[in-house]
Amino acid sequence: MANRKRKISSKIAWSTPDRICVRGLDLPNEILGHMNLGDLAFLQLTGRKPTLEEGRVFNAIVITLVEHGITPSALAARMTYMGAPEALQAAVAAGLCGLGTVFVGSMEGASKMLYEALPRDKLGSRQDLDKLADETVEAFAARRAIVPGLGHPVHKPVDPRTPRLFQIAAENGLSGEYVELIKKIQTAAEKRSGKMLPINATGTIGAICCEFGFSWKIVRGFGVMARAIGLVGHILEESENPIAYEIWQRAEEESLETSGPRAD
Amino acid sequence: MANRKRKISSKIAWSTPDRICVRGLDLPNEILGHMNLGDLAFLQLTGRKPTLEEGRVFNAIVITLVEHGITPSALAARMTYMGAPEALQAAVAAGLCGLGTVFVGSMEGASKMLYEALPRDKLGSRQDLDKLADETVEAFAARRAIVPGLGHPVHKPVDPRTPRLFQIAAENGLSGEYVELIKKIQTAAEKRSGKMLPINATGTIGAICCEFGFSWKIVRGFGVMARAIGLVGHILEESENPIAYEIWQRAEEESLETSGPRAD
Amino acid sequence: MANRKRKISSKIAWSTPDRICVRGLDLPNEILGHMNLGDLAFLQLTGRKPTLEEGRVFNAIVITLVEHGITPSALAARMTYMGAPEALQAAVAAGLCGLGTVFVGSMEGASKMLYEALPRDKLGSRQDLDKLADETVEAFAARRAIVPGLGHPVHKPVDPRTPRLFQIAAENGLSGEYVELIKKIQTAAEKRSGKMLPINATGTIGAICCEFGFSWKIVRGFGVMARAIGLVGHILEESENPIAYEIWQRAEEESLETSGPRAD
Amino acid sequence: MANRKRKISSKIAWSTPDRICVRGLDLPNEILGHMNLGDLAFLQLTGRKPTLEEGRVFNAIVITLVEHGITPSALAARMTYMGAPEALQAAVAAGLCGLGTVFVGSMEGASKMLYEALPRDKLGSRQDLDKLADETVEAFAARRAIVPGLGHPVHKPVDPRTPRLFQIAAENGLSGEYVELIKKIQTAAEKRSGKMLPINATGTIGAICCEFGFSWKIVRGFGVMARAIGLVGHILEESENPIAYEIWQRAEEESLETSGPRAD
Repeated sequence: MANRKRKISSKIAWSTPDRICVRGLDLPNEILGHMNLGDLAFLQLTGRKPTLEEGRVFNAIVITLVEHGITPSALAARMTYMGAPEALQAAVAAGLCGLGTVFVGSMEGASKMLYEALPRDKLGSRQDLDKLADETVEAFAARRAIVPGLGHPVHKPVDPRTPRLFQIAAENGLSGEYVELIKKIQTAAEKRSGKMLPINATGTIGAICCEFGFSWKIVRGFGVMARAIGLVGHILEESENPIAYEIWQRAEEESLETSGPRAD
Repeated sequence: MANRKRKISSKIAWSTPDRICVRGLDLPNEILGHMNLGDLAFLQLTGRKPTLEEGRVFNAIVITLVEHGITPSALAARMTYMGAPEALQAAVAAGLCGLGTVFVGSMEGASKMLYEALPRDKLGSRQDLDKLADETVEAFAARRAIVPGLGHPVHKPVDPRTPRLFQIAAENGLSGEYVELIKKIQTAAEKRSGKMLPINATGTIGAICCEFGFSWKIVRGFGVMARAIGLVGHILEESENPIAYEIWQRAEEESLETSGPRAD
Repeated sequence: MANRKRKISSKIAWSTPDRICVRGLDLPNEILGHMNLGDLAFLQLTGRKPTLEEGRVFNAIVITLVEHGITPSALAARMTYMGAPEALQAAVAAGLCGLGTVFVGSMEGASKMLYEALPRDKLGSRQDLDKLADETVEAFAARRAIVPGLGHPVHKPVDPRTPRLFQIAAENGLSGEYVELIKKIQTAAEKRSGKMLPINATGTIGAICCEFGFSWKIVRGFGVMARAIGLVGHILEESENPIAYEIWQRAEEESLETSGPRAD
Repeated sequence: MANRKRKISSKIAWSTPDRICVRGLDLPNEILGHMNLGDLAFLQLTGRKPTLEEGRVFNAIVITLVEHGITPSALAARMTYMGAPEALQAAVAAGLCGLGTVFVGSMEGASKMLYEALPRDKLGSRQDLDKLADETVEAFAARRAIVPGLGHPVHKPVDPRTPRLFQIAAENGLSGEYVELIKKIQTAAEKRSGKMLPINATGTIGAICCEFGFSWKIVRGFGVMARAIGLVGHILEESENPIAYEIWQRAEEESLETSGPRAD
């Protein structure tokens, strides 16, 4: 094996016969009974316990992402469960595989946009947010790209999650220049396009993630871990009141109308 | 499409332009800011809000399952992330795929064993738990099967999570005949085998899940959703301090020593 | 790292700067241009090149498993692709996750049943196949289990793949006691049940896999690798003529009829 | 359900009680026994049977992608199998999830680069390939991007698959301007960088895929379907000669040296 350049190391957890530590805290005595699941997720990701205020906001963010009804992701999980009910974990995995650029991308896109417009080391230096908002909207328009985090097919003129999440963030000291900036970007985008472009939940969460200082690269991970919870719920419901079989049968039947022997 | 026998329905969530409901509760106004992530998971799975006590125990159970260090599951996720860093969700999915009979199976196995020994409709009818425990251990021995939820390669003579979880369950009114029964099963199994067989974390959680009344079929799902949180943490660490490449290189190199041209 | 009990080794492939070997054959010079994909799959799994006859039969088996139209597996892959078109591999993975006990299980079930009735070391010893068939059917009936590999919801009275696969196997010297036995099991099962129970494609393939001597544990793998090819085809079609969005919209809409605010 | 805009349709396969058709061909009578697995994959993807020549080249391409030894993808599959041996399909799925931009991306990158330099409608119009090659290399250099399909960490100065694949393509009439162009791009890139930059297997395959006229978006799919075959082989070997447990134990142990209680 000889000398290798890199050491295999991980700072997340370790255990001995009588101790188990996660991120430096003793699991039985300092975590169990003292923290809720959202706070533990924050600890797992950042290496430190959230303050009471951070915990409230972080729990709210992740909870928002748990459940969105009969989504493509839920359908993929249910279809998978029908074929392999003995492997529930594979059904959840299948449901997660589609959480890519189309459905959760706007969340990381919003964070990235905000960090690019206003890098963290410029915070507190009295940047002209109106100007940054205008420039951002212009830049997206110039390359004919959609401004991430704005607009919703159903929730108009207001996404009902947005004002509530902003309120929770504000009440807990996590509403600063990034929240302000995305609101100004909305105003600029609506003015430029003449269309109603509500800040949607992913835009809201993307902005609050910037307030926390999370890397935009991990923001998608919040959606992934939240949706895993949601998918277990869908699989449980599918086991009690299945719909995948019916959806499959209808799709197969209808596809044969146009593609089967009668269509030859 | 004609008449179909089944209707496509789901009771989990719905939305209108200005409302979003999960399990009958208004997401912005009744959930966000009022519940933590573990409580929301309970709601998602059972259709009702946990009591304060249930919430405490359920959060503790799921938190216990989030993180176990450098596991095969974490390694699968990290290997996947190395090849497709743009698809974080697929790395989490890969890590979940292995949560099958070997690593989380004992949790559902323990629940199933306890329900079979003591069906819920027999609770409160003064069953002789010592006798049920002896019979259960005998039945497993007769078919040369391992009693699920007992024994641990590292945590001896006591799994440190077990007394703490039982304490939390007891303090919150969720320690009844199933918890008592698994303790008696441990005693019977140790007496029969002459070996130290601590109740491990999965056995403990399996028993507490029976106290809740959860179907043993969904118990694996708690491990799956918890581990999704843990895996996002591992991927974040991998992105900052990668180990997958080194592990891969060592394994490939060593495999060539015996299988490569020198071995021809 | 000290002494470890096991060495990391793999006999499948190795390479040096100017050579690449798979299963002991030189990839550029002995494989490329000399073997087809099915033969290479046989080599990958068994460590030896198939004979011409084995190659014909093995190609036919795997080809049979590639494509079954709009299946739950295809729908899971298409749903996943809709959300993450940039991660085609994750869409294929999602589609594979459901190839479990329900849809491919009967193939390994048939192989296992045949091996249990007639272990390979009893081949050629003039076993009474009629008797073995009757006993097998009785044993399944006694535990109220379905005989794997028999019956089909659509293909009656004959699964059109079955006679053709048996013909190819016979023409290539791979039709022996296992093929005979499954035919006798069919007869016995039909007599016992009074129902039409054609040997389906998975039963046929299960029997031919026994003729090859493949472990029943790997038989599912043939379905998995074949379906990966099929799923790439479905994703390509989905990219050109999408149906996942429409299926999703219909399912979501219909589920709101019974579960949405009007149903409150 | 009312009128919907889109019809659910698929042209890939259909069946009736006595017929099964894939891409318009009768599976039992026109495919089984008449085509090999690589030809069937071509049919599944393009909707037509390959010519003899196309079949030879396509089989060679896909075979090249099946097996690369102990890769991160193989390790992810083996780690997953260790935890869920009952769900072989999930282990293959986990192994596929990492076939993203890092390991198969160069294949689609090469195809995309070639199509952008020389769109298909410009073929046969006597383009100056030397000039196109220089411009392409300059363009990549200008944005500090690596030219896809060139260079290999092990296979120097020649990737042994490359000349053989080009030979097979040439012998079968599939070596035209795209193959010529990538060779000129190699020359230009080596001249510009002063480094040895062999055309690697993915560059070679990317160029030949252009000769076929395949969309660059589906090229990754060839790697995915090929690797599914390879992964089944790895799982079979893992079931007989396991290495995942040892790799896991070593990694966990070493990570504790720096992160465990001794490091506190």
